[in-house]
Formats: sequence, C-alpha cells, structure tokens
Amino acid sequence: MSHSTARRVMHLGVFLDVSGHYASAWRHPSTQADRFFDLGYYKQLAGKAEQGKLDMVFLSDRYGIPDRYGNRFDTTVRSISSARLDPVTLITAIAAITERIGVAATSSTSFTEPFLTARQFASIDHLSGGRVGWNVVTSTSDNEARNFSKEGILEHQARYERAREFLEAANGLWDSWEDGALRFDKAGGVFADAGKIHYLHYQGEHFQVRGPLDVPRSPQGRPVIIQAGSSEAGRDFAARFAEVIFTAQPTIDAAQSFYADMKRRAAVTGRSPEHLKIMPGVMPIVAESEVEARRIEASLSDLVDPLAGLALLSDQINYDLSVHPLDEPLPELQEVSGMQSRLQLVAKMLQSERLTLRELGRFYAGSRMHRKVVGSPEQVADFMEEWFTGGACDGFNLMFPFVPDSMEQFIDLVVPELQRRGLFRTEYTGRTLRDHLGLPRP
Amino acid sequence: MSHSTARRVMHLGVFLDVSGHYASAWRHPSTQADRFFDLGYYKQLAGKAEQGKLDMVFLSDRYGIPDRYGNRFDTTVRSISSARLDPVTLITAIAAITERIGVAATSSTSFTEPFLTARQFASIDHLSGGRVGWNVVTSTSDNEARNFSKEGILEHQARYERAREFLEAANGLWDSWEDGALRFDKAGGVFADAGKIHYLHYQGEHFQVRGPLDVPRSPQGRPVIIQAGSSEAGRDFAARFAEVIFTAQPTIDAAQSFYADMKRRAAVTGRSPEHLKIMPGVMPIVAESEVEARRIEASLSDLVDPLAGLALLSDQINYDLSVHPLDEPLPELQEVSGMQSRLQLVAKMLQSERLTLRELGRFYAGSRMHRKVVGSPEQVADFMEEWFTGGACDGFNLMFPFVPDSMEQFIDLVVPELQRRGLFRTEYTGRTLRDHLGLPRP
Repeated sequence: MSHSTARRVMHLGVFLDVSGHYASAWRHPSTQADRFFDLGYYKQLAGKAEQGKLDMVFLSDRYGIPDRYGNRFDTTVRSISSARLDPVTLITAIAAITERIGVAATSSTSFTEPFLTARQFASIDHLSGGRVGWNVVTSTSDNEARNFSKEGILEHQARYERAREFLEAANGLWDSWEDGALRFDKAGGVFADAGKIHYLHYQGEHFQVRGPLDVPRSPQGRPVIIQAGSSEAGRDFAARFAEVIFTAQPTIDAAQSFYADMKRRAAVTGRSPEHLKIMPGVMPIVAESEVEARRIEASLSDLVDPLAGLALLSDQINYDLSVHPLDEPLPELQEVSGMQSRLQLVAKMLQSERLTLRELGRFYAGSRMHRKVVGSPEQVADFMEEWFTGGACDGFNLMFPFVPDSMEQFIDLVVPELQRRGLFRTEYTGRTLRDHLGLPRP
Repeated sequence: MSHSTARRVMHLGVFLDVSGHYASAWRHPSTQADRFFDLGYYKQLAGKAEQGKLDMVFLSDRYGIPDRYGNRFDTTVRSISSARLDPVTLITAIAAITERIGVAATSSTSFTEPFLTARQFASIDHLSGGRVGWNVVTSTSDNEARNFSKEGILEHQARYERAREFLEAANGLWDSWEDGALRFDKAGGVFADAGKIHYLHYQGEHFQVRGPLDVPRSPQGRPVIIQAGSSEAGRDFAARFAEVIFTAQPTIDAAQSFYADMKRRAAVTGRSPEHLKIMPGVMPIVAESEVEARRIEASLSDLVDPLAGLALLSDQINYDLSVHPLDEPLPELQEVSGMQSRLQLVAKMLQSERLTLRELGRFYAGSRMHRKVVGSPEQVADFMEEWFTGGACDGFNLMFPFVPDSMEQFIDLVVPELQRRGLFRTEYTGRTLRDHLGLPRP
C-alpha cells in the first residue's frame, strides 16, 4: 500500500429521508414517517450518524409535491412519504442539537436571490461552528417554477448560467468580510474595521448584488459546495464550483469513467483534483446474512406502488410519463427539459433491459438509478472498498432504504468493518465539515 | 377589579439584540458582542427569557449593513454592533434548544417569493411544536433592494400591495393541507389523503403560486403574524393580517390613541379586537434604585457616537442625513420614501424639542423613538401597569439596552413584581405561541 493510499480516508454522508429512500419505506413496519415533525427523531438519526463518525447528513429538496405524473399529486401523496420540512431549516435545527457531524442542505439557484441564500448558509456555518454544506441544484420541474411566479423552468443551459452567477455572487458575499474584520475594541470604539469589509457590486445578467453581506466571514470561509449535476453543463459547473459531487453511478465502470473525467476537469480549471470529492449515492441493504438482506429487499419491493416510481421519475425529467401505456416499453423520449443525466441513465438501462413502464416504475421506486448493494456487512464493505480503492469514488452518500433500522444496521455492522480495514476514521480529527472532508478553507 | 380585567394577562416579548439596543451597548464592559456566533450565548439569553415565562423572543432584520448615511458603512461598522445572523436561521436554532418560549423572526415581503418563506415558517412551527411567529416587514431602504437585483424599494403604497399579496399567498399555502390530511395508513398504503390537500392557484399582480405547500399544516395552523407598520397603509394592513403589533409609542397618550384606533380597525374588518395584541417597544433601564438606573443610562449615553444614531435613522427613513450640518436643527424633510411612521415621530419630537442633528443622533442611538423607562423595579412595573391597564397596550416588546445584564436584571427584579401584582403569568399554561398570546388557531 503506497503512502498516499494509506492516508486516504473514505468519506461518508447520510442522505437523510424521514422514512427511507425506498418509495415504500414508510409502509415498512419499523419506520416512523409520522415522526417527521419531531426534532427528537432527527436527534436520534443524526446522533446515530455522529456516533458512526460519518462526515455529514445530507438533505435533498424540491419545491412542492411531485405532480408531473398526470399533472396531479394523488399518486405521490398516497404512496410516498411526500411531505417534507424545509431542508435549510431542518439542518439548522439538527446543527443545534449535534456537535461534530456536518450538515448539508439542498437549495436551488433558480427561484431566489443569492443574498438571502448566502446569508442563511453563512449563519448556519457560524452557529454550527463550521459544519455546513450547500448542495446546489438548478431545479428541473416546471411545477416547481409555478410555485415561484414563473411559467416554467429555464432551459438547461440557461439554468446553469443563472447558477454560475448565483455562485459567483454568493462567493463574493462570503468573502466580503475579510478574516479579522471584527475588532470588538470597546475602549477605542471600533466594532469592526471598515477597511476589511468590501462592497461587491456584482453585475450579472440575472443578479445585481451590491453587498457587503451583513454576516462576517464564517468559520469555514464558505460553506462546502456540493453539486449533483452530471450532464455536460453540470460537469463544467461542478469542475469550477463544487467540492463534493453527489452522483448516480449504477456500475463501477461508469463510476470510474465519471471519476476520471471530473478529476481531469478540476485539474483543467487549475484546481487540485484532491479538492473535489466524488461521492456516488449508494443504497446499502445490509443484514447479518445475504439471504436476510435479500429478504428485506423483496419485502420493500412488495410494498411498492409502481406508479410512485413513475411519479418520481416524471418529476425529475419534467415529463409526464402517464401518457404512455403502463404495460408496454417506454418509447424513446424527445425534447425532455428536466434532469438530463437522469434521463440518460434511464435510457441506457432500457437499452439493455427491456422493461415495461410499470416495471420501470417498480425499479425506479427502489433506488432511483443509484447503485443498490445487498448483502452481509462484509459484502457491503467489499463493494465499498472495491469502488473506493478502484478509482471509482472518494466515498459515498448513503441512501438507507428504510430508517432508522437500516441506518442503525449499517453503522453498527458496516462502519466497524470499514474501520477494521483502515478505510474509515475511528474518531473525528477536526471540527469543521471541511476538516472531515479534507478540503481547504477558501 | 372587573372579571375581564382579572383574566387579562400582560404579554412580553424580548426584542433580542446580541449586545443590546443602545447603539453603544457593545462598548459596555459587561456585554459580549464577540459571542454573537455562539449558540451557547443564545441558549443563555433565550433560557433566561424562558425562565421569566416571557411570551417570545423577537428578532428584527434588515438586509445588509446600514449605509444610507453618506452612502458608506464606515460609521455603522465602527460604532454599532452591525453584524447579524439571519434571524430566521437563528430562531430555528433557538427553537431547537428551548422548550416553551415563542420564537419570532422578521422577514420581508419585498425581496423573496411567498413559497419559500411560508415553507420555512411552517417548518419552524413543526420543529418547535407550534412556537413560531413571523414579523412581516416591507423593508424601507434602497440599499437593501440593491442586494436583491433591484434599483430601489417600491414606493410606500406599492410595498403594502405586494405585502398583501404575499400574505394572501402564504395564508393559502399554510391552509393547503387540511388538518388530518396525513393518514400514515401502512396496511392500506395511504400516506396522505389527496382529497384533503389543495392546489392554491393564487393569481396576483406580483405573485402567482400554484401550491400546494409540501409541508402539512403546522401545529399553530399558521405562524403568529406580527407587524410593525404604523403608517396609514401599515395600519390597514395590520388590521387585516396582524395578530401582534409591534409599535413605537413615545407617550401614553399616543399609545392610547394608537391602541383604540387599531382595535377599532380590527373590528371594522370583522375580527375580534382581542385577537390583535398591541405591544409597543419599551426600553427598561432598571436597577435596584432610580439613581443607579440613571447612572447606567448616563454611562451608555457617554459611549454613544451620535453619528451611529444618524446612520440608523438615515437607513430607516431611506434618506441620507449626512447632507445636513451636524450642529444645526434638521430642516423639514420632503419626499422621504422610507419608514413613514418613524419619520412622523421624529418630526413631531423636533417640533417640541429643538435639537441639532448631532443631538438628534445621540438621542436616536438610545431607543430609536421607542419609550425608555428608567428606574427601580417598582417604578418600571408602575409604568408597565399604567400603560397595560390604561388602554395603551396589551403588553410590551422589551428592548434591553445592554445584554445579558439588563435583561437578567429585568427578569430577576421586574417580572416577580409584575407577578406579585397579578399582571403576568407565573407559569406557562399552554404549549404554543398562540396559547401564550391568547390567540385562536386559524
């Protein structure tokens, strides 16, 4: 084992969902979707992740109830844990009741102004002692736009243009107070040093932001920027701005190719490839034995409503799949404006596996094109080690199928196995999310 | 004492400021402005307020550093505790580490869309078990607008038009899930009852919001709506939407007149006047004796930079006072577009007291036109009783001059006196902020 390999540590996030990522998870006897209002429940979940020394909890977002499928929300609200809490709000509360683990929330660049978003994340960074991350998304559904006084989403390239401006303005705001600008000089009567606080005067096509921010520079300087776009425009954006990439990679070959491509793109922009961490989503279904794990997977699958999967997919690709017959294969889709990378993954799978739309829905309700790993703790650890040491990733965003049980199983059984193998930390060594992830302070 | 008087209880909020409301408070030896990042400090402050059984902590807001005075922020950042944390974020964290006290934050209707604001407040209401309030402001400074891709603020009437639409849309979103829409029927596979969730289809001039919200109806139904506009347009708005009015009333005569007017307006709109609570700001400077309290006031005043007061006032009225000579009286101002009620209060005071601009700045740096009360615990309690029983208010929003000391003094000395007089609760009797305030659930 080379020196650099010996020092490399796997990064693990928990992609938190109130009952779990399997669309049917809320129906599993052990889940507690009815506790999603309850801060004590999040304390239990985040506390368990913290006990496992994980890097961060991660919350996704979309603005509204998925209703692209048939342009109604009946399927969604009946069959999926469809209610949510605002994730930026929720990570703030989680940060207040945890000590060490990072907290990352999704927020879109398409519907708000950079000032307030930058201010909220800077504030969470202060209150958490430097543990916040922002998962930047551009949003993919017209029905989300219609909650924000717009007819529909911008087209793909324009969404990323707006996102670029949003990030440029946010970065400028976070940097508008230099470190050390606060003086607190009571005797001299100097609260802050005006010479170390700067107007921004950002002039973009979408945003004009005068600045400065009214929040001094935060412990991490800037929140950790996470990004999940895997399309061409998404990759360019990520190479420039992202520090963590969350991505759906069904196979190790695809993951290795994506990993190499993103590290190369980061280097081209002049960044160190080590400062861009690639963390594919993975759904671990783990039990004492493989047989038991397979049994759990089957029981979750039995509870699935295939339409729930189609409702989720319709929303993400911004295309109403209800117009196609359920028991025939899906024809090739044209002019779909939503999440391009997701559409490509689905199309690729349908080339090799001839599924009906109903079968696709059942499949998608599982892990939504993210890799599923089913087996014993050793088998799951083997999988993770193979990807991690094989140039496919720097860690994983863990999508537990049902919680809290499958999360507790993973942390009690798989984390110790990873630790035994020297692949994962046994104790937090730093204070901030940047420390956990091995990222520099900007 | 009549039956209805016997049952009436005073409502008390703490208008929280990291070092206190006197512009010079951060320079006072006992204050800890350098702890404003520290969640433990807010736990100490909110915990003390909760120990005093107060109704709520309240946070103001403005977007950016006040820099209308001379169009630069030098004066502000030098002489005032000018940094802030996003108040919506901060009350979320405070809610997570308190049990009973209400948490209210200011958020403007001028720069964002209703969907996200409604969702954040609904989420805090869930996570806090029904303890959230929203102080609705329209924002008064062009320099705030310039942080949000706008040239300047809307004119006064248009700001309130936009605010009206914002509130209509937010109310609609909060009501888009009926109580009982969540079913959690695992066996039957029904997560939520689609028949109890409704599209909003709000169509305004400023906002179009499809809905429904993705957050189920919260414990309070809607957050408590607080409003502080005291202009004609502000009063109309408050009569329709507000449940608590925060107002600056320098004299009991003015307060009685305002109180009677607002209760009348509420009745005209068909609301019960009892469901609109009038809570003027008051700055209590309290000590064991009046002499000691006067000494404290003088020491705070000595530390004041008069320009700090002018910087604050310039920002609130959206007018650069630096163009006028410091040692002459302020001429009558024309065409000022900012906070109309504040401008009127200042003009009225200058009619009776002929102050130079510098003297005005020193005065304004104290309690910003809010009533100051200086004296022993009994004297402060006498003042509060007179206003409360004299038809001038339903309680107060307490603006402590320097914290934590002056807040601790008040809670340790004045609250017990109010309790002895039967004017204030000795224990929380309900769970939600609506319970504390005696407001119905919408």
